[in-house]
Amino acid sequence: MPLSFKHLTSTKQLLRRDTDAILQTAAEMEKVLLKGGNDLLAGKILASLFYEPSTRTRLSFETAMRRLGGEVISAEGIQFSSLYKGETVEDTMKVVGSYADIITMRHPEQGSADRAASVCPVPFINAGDGPGQHPTQALLDLFTIHKERGTIDGLKIAMAGDLRYGRTVHSLTFLLGLYKNLRFTFISPKELTMPDKVTTFLKEHDIPYEETHALSAGLVSDVLYMTRVQEERFADHSEYERLKDMYRLDAKMLKGKEVTVMHPLPRVGEIATDVDALKTAAYFRQAKNGVPVRMALLAMLLQAI
Amino acid sequence: MPLSFKHLTSTKQLLRRDTDAILQTAAEMEKVLLKGGNDLLAGKILASLFYEPSTRTRLSFETAMRRLGGEVISAEGIQFSSLYKGETVEDTMKVVGSYADIITMRHPEQGSADRAASVCPVPFINAGDGPGQHPTQALLDLFTIHKERGTIDGLKIAMAGDLRYGRTVHSLTFLLGLYKNLRFTFISPKELTMPDKVTTFLKEHDIPYEETHALSAGLVSDVLYMTRVQEERFADHSEYERLKDMYRLDAKMLKGKEVTVMHPLPRVGEIATDVDALKTAAYFRQAKNGVPVRMALLAMLLQAI
Amino acid sequence: MPLSFKHLTSTKQLLRRDTDAILQTAAEMEKVLLKGGNDLLAGKILASLFYEPSTRTRLSFETAMRRLGGEVISAEGIQFSSLYKGETVEDTMKVVGSYADIITMRHPEQGSADRAASVCPVPFINAGDGPGQHPTQALLDLFTIHKERGTIDGLKIAMAGDLRYGRTVHSLTFLLGLYKNLRFTFISPKELTMPDKVTTFLKEHDIPYEETHALSAGLVSDVLYMTRVQEERFADHSEYERLKDMYRLDAKMLKGKEVTVMHPLPRVGEIATDVDALKTAAYFRQAKNGVPVRMALLAMLLQAI
Repeated sequence: MPLSFKHLTSTKQLLRRDTDAILQTAAEMEKVLLKGGNDLLAGKILASLFYEPSTRTRLSFETAMRRLGGEVISAEGIQFSSLYKGETVEDTMKVVGSYADIITMRHPEQGSADRAASVCPVPFINAGDGPGQHPTQALLDLFTIHKERGTIDGLKIAMAGDLRYGRTVHSLTFLLGLYKNLRFTFISPKELTMPDKVTTFLKEHDIPYEETHALSAGLVSDVLYMTRVQEERFADHSEYERLKDMYRLDAKMLKGKEVTVMHPLPRVGEIATDVDALKTAAYFRQAKNGVPVRMALLAMLLQAI
Repeated sequence: MPLSFKHLTSTKQLLRRDTDAILQTAAEMEKVLLKGGNDLLAGKILASLFYEPSTRTRLSFETAMRRLGGEVISAEGIQFSSLYKGETVEDTMKVVGSYADIITMRHPEQGSADRAASVCPVPFINAGDGPGQHPTQALLDLFTIHKERGTIDGLKIAMAGDLRYGRTVHSLTFLLGLYKNLRFTFISPKELTMPDKVTTFLKEHDIPYEETHALSAGLVSDVLYMTRVQEERFADHSEYERLKDMYRLDAKMLKGKEVTVMHPLPRVGEIATDVDALKTAAYFRQAKNGVPVRMALLAMLLQAI
Repeated sequence: MPLSFKHLTSTKQLLRRDTDAILQTAAEMEKVLLKGGNDLLAGKILASLFYEPSTRTRLSFETAMRRLGGEVISAEGIQFSSLYKGETVEDTMKVVGSYADIITMRHPEQGSADRAASVCPVPFINAGDGPGQHPTQALLDLFTIHKERGTIDGLKIAMAGDLRYGRTVHSLTFLLGLYKNLRFTFISPKELTMPDKVTTFLKEHDIPYEETHALSAGLVSDVLYMTRVQEERFADHSEYERLKDMYRLDAKMLKGKEVTVMHPLPRVGEIATDVDALKTAAYFRQAKNGVPVRMALLAMLLQAI
């Protein structure tokens, strides 16, 4: 079944039938990976354009493309010349879209992904647009929750840390809005609570949520999604210093708990390394899941399956 | 028919039989692209060494290599370590030429391409050497003119903007010197007129040209080649600010005109976006033409066809 | 015969049977290169993570992987985001090790390679850890000595330049400790003599060495290994300026000599370009040897041969 869209810029555009198809295809891609990849996208080229560095996301996309036999052209960092010379994102898309078969872009400016997709002659995937969306991260999070818990409907999901500027938790919450009987617990200092755009969305969809500053509330959930307080989102450095260490999860706190611990990585100090050995520590499996999920998206958007 | 050279550093070295062969091969490469590429250069490696960033040119070369089944090793930007550590271009060529089968290089220093080619053990293609030459851009421009106008001989070609520091227009003018009955119109502020090396060349070859500061003179030509005033070529920033917006082409000015509008991109403000929808706006097709032209050069220099 | 290790972080871990196997396999890889490569590692992915730039080493690794039909995912420079965001090397290995089949890393911090290897889920190769080790350089040096001189046992090896901070000469000396009847001559200013860790090693293994500041002592050796004084290792710039030009080898000094001249490159002024034409100037052949040696390591660590 084809996806309902040509370009993926936001989790808000996804229908339940889309996520069902993506999760099912990603599970098939895990089998492809066990066999060492295939040639489904042989002869196809992914352009991977990172206006701000995100090595993890970029390498995950490039791995996905190569495991399916495709090729990659890639640019990363501030030296990326089109930005440097003042070219619009729209012009860049028209040009690079005449080279490659599919484009993924990370850009520091909110809305840049929508502007890019509006003119892109080939399928476009948003790999993060500043404080905006990061839909492939949300999809791999969704895939991870499903794998770890066996279901998504009915779960109690806690999110902790920087919920205000954390693009990841916004994208994921919108996506989880497609599922039934979820309950959310949002854990943050008062300066970093969920923004109105997310809480309004939940109210409109009659999805219950509570807000607290106590991390303990997350330990009795099915999933605890930890996030890093990102220095680059703060104009005031001292504010960052004050808030960054508010939540630190360690193995002692998790003793006897069955909560699945997730984190988009990189972590700095939010999760102590003694948590890594716990069976419920899912964050490295979560990172690994990025490859089959992105394989699924690349294959589906290129209409190869 | 083989090319008359092993290394391509300047359009001045090209004979008419070379450009005929390249244009014909590029047209064949367009057919290869329609079929999704081939394996002509399977097992071959292109080294793409960009001492200054030029994402567009680099990605175009890398796409060309991959569409022919070849591989790429790539370095871009100021962190490029050999430069950083003071190695000469000659030494870099000897080393990288012992890894790869063909090299393309962008370097900020005029003459670096000739120095590189003089010792390079494998075919070398200049992808721009500072204010020097950029021959593959000139060849894709030539291919574009031929495709858009059906011929090159006899055309009236206007060039506008920064003609002094614009490497692109110099390389192209030298190349057009191979064709018959051309007439040139050079449009620029007096600070940015064509340098002597170009006008002397035209006089020596009895090719007529006129110089003006009125953009209107370009609208009655067959081709109007617009260029960006490049900030990085000015020591004095205020001089740049004063000159950069002197020429702005918009759809209204082009109404009823049949002139083919070209631009090497990126554009900043020289061409309004309302021009994009006109049939005569050829600059995005021009960018796209970079791939088949570079495929032709890679295949011919590697003697694969 | 399999290697005695899964990860290569230091030449100290290599046994004589390892170097014998690597040198023999590298010689076979030279034959593979003459035929244009093969598909031994088709479907495998090398992650090439360079926290500090080293274009030569990175391109050599990437060439090696591609000549064996494998793919590469690559990150280089200060914009490399995981470092930038404060992630530990251990976390990066766990994540990238879930994408790729083998990892090579260059990192500015001594000991980072051991930390990385200790958690890496796939084979790991140290491509230089600050002032620590650079084992693949030492192996290609070893392979070069063997090719140039026909043997390694019994040779008189001179090393000149910055022996204090020159990681390369340390790694190589430890490696040469596996061979019989070697004699070393260490040539340096007194500020840049071989560190205790190396001389203690030689004493413990009863390997004779002499220390001098006269470059002439190197001209009567079998091998003269020149090194660059590296600016980045000095806190005091004037100290660097004073020492960097102390040794300059030229063709006149080498007249009538049979000593094999080696250098890890890049050179700045230590070897005059008039040396390049001498048959005994082995440094460009040495750089070229990096490809077959790294092909051998990649294939052996991935257990493809």
